[in-house]
Amino acid sequence: MKAAVLAVGSELLGEDRAETNSLAVAALLRRHGVALVRKAVVGDDEDAIAGELARMAAECELVVVSGGLGPTSDDVTREAAARAFGGELREDPAIAEEIRRRFAAMGRSMPEVNRRQALVPAGATVIANPRGTAPGLRLESGAATVFLLPGVPAELQGLLDDAVAPWLAARCGEVALESLTLRVAGLPESEVEELIAAVYDEFGRADITLLAGGGDVRLRLTAGGEAAPRQARLAGMAQRLRGLLGVAVYGEGDEELEAAVGRLLLAAGQTLASAESCTGGLVGERVTRVPGSSAWYVGSVVAYDDRLKRELLGVPPDLLREHGAVSEAVARAMAAAARQRLGSDWAIGITGVAGPGGGSAEKPVGTVHVAVAGPAAVAHRLLRLPGERARVRWLASHAALEMLRRRLLAAPPAG
Amino acid sequence: MKAAVLAVGSELLGEDRAETNSLAVAALLRRHGVALVRKAVVGDDEDAIAGELARMAAECELVVVSGGLGPTSDDVTREAAARAFGGELREDPAIAEEIRRRFAAMGRSMPEVNRRQALVPAGATVIANPRGTAPGLRLESGAATVFLLPGVPAELQGLLDDAVAPWLAARCGEVALESLTLRVAGLPESEVEELIAAVYDEFGRADITLLAGGGDVRLRLTAGGEAAPRQARLAGMAQRLRGLLGVAVYGEGDEELEAAVGRLLLAAGQTLASAESCTGGLVGERVTRVPGSSAWYVGSVVAYDDRLKRELLGVPPDLLREHGAVSEAVARAMAAAARQRLGSDWAIGITGVAGPGGGSAEKPVGTVHVAVAGPAAVAHRLLRLPGERARVRWLASHAALEMLRRRLLAAPPAG
Repeated sequence: MKAAVLAVGSELLGEDRAETNSLAVAALLRRHGVALVRKAVVGDDEDAIAGELARMAAECELVVVSGGLGPTSDDVTREAAARAFGGELREDPAIAEEIRRRFAAMGRSMPEVNRRQALVPAGATVIANPRGTAPGLRLESGAATVFLLPGVPAELQGLLDDAVAPWLAARCGEVALESLTLRVAGLPESEVEELIAAVYDEFGRADITLLAGGGDVRLRLTAGGEAAPRQARLAGMAQRLRGLLGVAVYGEGDEELEAAVGRLLLAAGQTLASAESCTGGLVGERVTRVPGSSAWYVGSVVAYDDRLKRELLGVPPDLLREHGAVSEAVARAMAAAARQRLGSDWAIGITGVAGPGGGSAEKPVGTVHVAVAGPAAVAHRLLRLPGERARVRWLASHAALEMLRRRLLAAPPAG
Repeated sequence: MKAAVLAVGSELLGEDRAETNSLAVAALLRRHGVALVRKAVVGDDEDAIAGELARMAAECELVVVSGGLGPTSDDVTREAAARAFGGELREDPAIAEEIRRRFAAMGRSMPEVNRRQALVPAGATVIANPRGTAPGLRLESGAATVFLLPGVPAELQGLLDDAVAPWLAARCGEVALESLTLRVAGLPESEVEELIAAVYDEFGRADITLLAGGGDVRLRLTAGGEAAPRQARLAGMAQRLRGLLGVAVYGEGDEELEAAVGRLLLAAGQTLASAESCTGGLVGERVTRVPGSSAWYVGSVVAYDDRLKRELLGVPPDLLREHGAVSEAVARAMAAAARQRLGSDWAIGITGVAGPGGGSAEKPVGTVHVAVAGPAAVAHRLLRLPGERARVRWLASHAALEMLRRRLLAAPPAG
């Protein structure tokens, strides 16, 4: 089976937005062993959409379209599909009612424009979208099945899971290609590459993809064939790589570093707090992305102003005067104070120069002090981070979480 | 003039890599007023590339291709172009010599495979690439000009500057299209659309693009022609839209909501603090994305655990018991306490149910109480937000910042 993906939206033809919805589709297709042969982007233009739809449906058995299902008059994917595949558009009263209900639940009445989202080409199957007002639509054209899905990434992913995945499973049978991702922190890409060189020879380079970014390295292992040998092969690769990379592997699949930290804390029955300066709340924001983090994260003091480092955290004024706010002594004092004042087992303290201003010869932009206070001691690391403000802040939070994770692994179990 | 962009490379059909070379092409095209009407991605497949090239050259006057000019046998853009446009491939001795010279400069002899990079379709013009071994190629096919450029981003950008920009300048003259973005908060997309409907009629729909996301609506206004009338037209559109949208327009261009809030605080000589529960530090993280925010942001208490709401913020235990942590009373108390304890002019307090757990019939997931404490009073809003955890948290922080911004606009000037 061949598949094509069409992304609709004039904003995707500009210089600002890369088209990324197709990546989610590509991931799903890969799991089912379906070849994605072409991607295209067209603007909010009925002719262009209709032309591309007809072409893709003639070439491929599966066409996935994202975008152009919004309520405004430049959302014309419905009209284009009706034109390309010859079905007239009609308002579906059940969809209109559902949209009205959604607005009512927010205490508002449905704007008139939203009625456009209830239009359905004749012969199309409506796919409920619990995450937004635009339902998805499925059409058949010759040998091709065409899914029209919303462009909002969370809504798209939801309908890929709810509707496209079951359709693929029914058409292509079981998952044909399986992959497993190992997530690695605390090691640069080149070092990971060197450590695992032998595994490339053993298992073949094509089945191991190395992706680096945001302080992480991810290793994607892929295997095909029947379920039993496929899984055995994946498990063998993973075991070999874990042996070579040791504690640097923090998780598998979608598990982010903050979730891995939470898992360890939860298992130990311990809690975390933070005291942040240059990261401005990013550590707290990241750990509370994890559902259920209230079981192990108590909170944070963001002491952006040095006055708050003194008043809220009790960092001694002498320390600040003598060493400056960006210093090992202050990072250690922040972590220790957070642990004590917020009443947690562990605490992270971060202070640094995120830029673009504030750097000096002695403490250039990218200088960050990270401390982790635990039941036994306070550990510290001085980081010299590359890049701009956002990157420095992210890498600082990442290094702090990784430092905590290694300490949790090394710590004796709670008693 | 219409243009299309083709990106070649099987790795761009996977789940890991968004196609971004087209953004550099789009930026160049926009400056010259050329409409990019279609982008496509195909793999390293001669048939697919040839088919797409023929189609694009039939539809557009300019086709820019990136990728597939490397030395290995899966780099087949040259072969595909020769096929699509009917010119035979021949080795160009001058290119081969140049490639040899590059290798010699690195103390190496040219690998045999690199001779493929010296192949040129008959009738093509060679474009020197000082940044790599693969030269660019320019072909004419009917009314279309086709540029084949390397996929390495720095090489692509170099040849866009060296060869495509001069070609565009010769064909289209000076920079012809200019745009201006108005940023709107606090209004849903459909309401913005209704409010500005008249402007579509006055100025033409094609020149106003509406982009919604993350609680914002952006209006991109575009004008062409000579500099003076073009800028007058943009200014006229912006003025008209600002008249209709009023205070909902918070900024222009790249200015994010948090930066607009900072600008107002800075102008008023006032400061901000926050007390966050369900957002976990996101408000602090967002405002400290703004360089120089230390001039107007003092810090935050992330009281994720209710114990910290009592201990760090002094929220009365009675309030928490009687109303629950997710309540108007607690949001107001958090904002007031942050303002007082952190010593700022303004403070944001947020408490809510971000999900996926923790919802109830009375307080379902998405229920968020936001309060803004200022010099005069504490204001409050109850939000019922759609979507998943990350979206609820983002929209809550956005609504809080927007609420603060409107209060800052309404507040009497400092002094």
